[in-house]
Amino acid sequence: MNLPSHGSNPQYVYEALKLKQPDKIVDFSVNTNPLGPPDFLKDQWGALFELVTDYPDPLASELRSVIADKEGLNIDQVLSGNGAAELIFLVASLFHGKKALIVSPAFSEYEQALLSYGCEVEEYILEEKNGWQLDPPVLLKALKGKDLVVICNPNNPTGIMYDKNHILEVISYAKDQKTLVMIDEAFYDFAENSPTLAAELPNYQNLIILRSLTKMYAIAGVRLGYVLGNRDLIHKLEDRKPHWSVNSLAQQLGIRCLHEANHVRKTQQFIKAERERVQSSLHSLSYSVLKSNVNFFLVKDLHQHRTDQLYQFLLSKGIVTRHTRNFKGLEGSHLRMAVKTREENDRMLEQMKEWRGEC
Amino acid sequence: MNLPSHGSNPQYVYEALKLKQPDKIVDFSVNTNPLGPPDFLKDQWGALFELVTDYPDPLASELRSVIADKEGLNIDQVLSGNGAAELIFLVASLFHGKKALIVSPAFSEYEQALLSYGCEVEEYILEEKNGWQLDPPVLLKALKGKDLVVICNPNNPTGIMYDKNHILEVISYAKDQKTLVMIDEAFYDFAENSPTLAAELPNYQNLIILRSLTKMYAIAGVRLGYVLGNRDLIHKLEDRKPHWSVNSLAQQLGIRCLHEANHVRKTQQFIKAERERVQSSLHSLSYSVLKSNVNFFLVKDLHQHRTDQLYQFLLSKGIVTRHTRNFKGLEGSHLRMAVKTREENDRMLEQMKEWRGEC
Repeated sequence: MNLPSHGSNPQYVYEALKLKQPDKIVDFSVNTNPLGPPDFLKDQWGALFELVTDYPDPLASELRSVIADKEGLNIDQVLSGNGAAELIFLVASLFHGKKALIVSPAFSEYEQALLSYGCEVEEYILEEKNGWQLDPPVLLKALKGKDLVVICNPNNPTGIMYDKNHILEVISYAKDQKTLVMIDEAFYDFAENSPTLAAELPNYQNLIILRSLTKMYAIAGVRLGYVLGNRDLIHKLEDRKPHWSVNSLAQQLGIRCLHEANHVRKTQQFIKAERERVQSSLHSLSYSVLKSNVNFFLVKDLHQHRTDQLYQFLLSKGIVTRHTRNFKGLEGSHLRMAVKTREENDRMLEQMKEWRGEC
Repeated sequence: MNLPSHGSNPQYVYEALKLKQPDKIVDFSVNTNPLGPPDFLKDQWGALFELVTDYPDPLASELRSVIADKEGLNIDQVLSGNGAAELIFLVASLFHGKKALIVSPAFSEYEQALLSYGCEVEEYILEEKNGWQLDPPVLLKALKGKDLVVICNPNNPTGIMYDKNHILEVISYAKDQKTLVMIDEAFYDFAENSPTLAAELPNYQNLIILRSLTKMYAIAGVRLGYVLGNRDLIHKLEDRKPHWSVNSLAQQLGIRCLHEANHVRKTQQFIKAERERVQSSLHSLSYSVLKSNVNFFLVKDLHQHRTDQLYQFLLSKGIVTRHTRNFKGLEGSHLRMAVKTREENDRMLEQMKEWRGEC
């Protein structure tokens, strides 16, 4: 099976598997906020039309200043990007001919970006027996001689938040040997006890933090992310960033979304309650589910070798989950599912029940 | 003076010059269609809201297929980008440690992109005495040993379309010595007799053509460009292009705009008539104007040393032109002006008349 390497756009999954796409599908492979964008967006959409024609602010000054204020940083420690993905590739472009370590399983874009720029990539593979947590002695050993380490926290695809002391141990060791630590916090705001390391930026020049606004604010179609880090690094990234890469709508939506603290709180509460409900139902149906801190989680059939069949069964019923074949350390053992609306989750649970009946 | 290196966003010009920005300004430094976007865009804006939440098609299949059909190419010879600027940086990233020649004066993004990736850049400077046309014997000599040559046609900032035979001579010589020729056709559709070299793509594996949709369709806030070229090169660029870099709105607007042949025709006719009217008025006011094929042109005071004063005078009156200080071969000798609406052009002409009175 040559399946797409990312969630969303399920038409490519059906094509790859030569399956007929049902008329109505629910896409559990995409991890955006099930509550949708904040209300203001629909209300103000008409007025946003005027942003279409003029060039975006190439410096994104207002957006970066809102982010800087929120994080207690200076504007020159912030760089916005055309989605976090643009920033991942910009960082990768600095590591041509160098060595990187990726804490895996992880978002596949890190590896693709680093390899495309001729960086030598190794993986530190998390283990189920450690509860998918970091194991500092092993990780520090793997880190030796590396120029970059990439950690996604909370982790995509496991949904697990790492022990903060473990991460600090890694950053501190990395500092001594001049290794850059990139922490991707794309899903940090879905967790109720925010796991962000942003407060550590003043202590560690070797730390950069990546954020995304497309998940929490459900604006994936518009693209918006940013990176927080030291001035020198931000300047290097800026130098390779195309002028106007953050479009005008993204800048305006970002500025407005970042004031929507209520939307974030409401989302966190909803996600927690709904995730617990769904996971408990799946558990009663004898599925194995991974405890998660965010808006998605891993699940597997107790008969692990049947995961592919379950995946295809669900597809045939219009339930699209995320296969884990291209996640190193999983290789298809689990499926990743987003927490969606109550109705959508119920539709998925119904099919999971039906599959159980067929076993 | 440390002036911005691009047009648009005039607030940065006023800031740099510590000038008070008048309440009402007209921005002649930005070269988008004065007729605005095609009518459908405003009519359909409400319905486009639904594109905000979902991830864009990472392959932009429909958009690329519309472009491929239009150009008589296969879809794998087309790559869309987050504005042409993203594609310029992607191309530049392939020339680390190599040598490039830029036909100048030209859009400053080429040089910035190439330098940021450690490419050695030389300029071939066009000359006024040749009517700003290419001079093949001199150009071919400069081309020797280069890995890449960049030509913007019609040229930004001169507005001049090169002799097609001259360009073909360059491409052919470049082919023999394995030099890639990138032709930026960002403004090709403003010229009535289309100067595109796209029909030559099957004959030259060393040719790539860059296009922009943000100018003709006035969608600069949304970002959209594409490149046409051979499969291998497109594949290399794709490998370094972040997933989802072309946002969902850009993809949909692109698909729809490319069917708007009437809008293009209407624009071409308007631009030609209005450019001739404006240029003739400037000529009667004893300004020196460059004959142009597109929606902008170069102008200078007959007392060339007064250009900076004219630039600042116009700024103080709310007329923002594009300084040419960072265009190699011009170094501030001229101002670049877009052809705008009749009313806006009249406002500019009034101030140009007033300045003449002050001389």
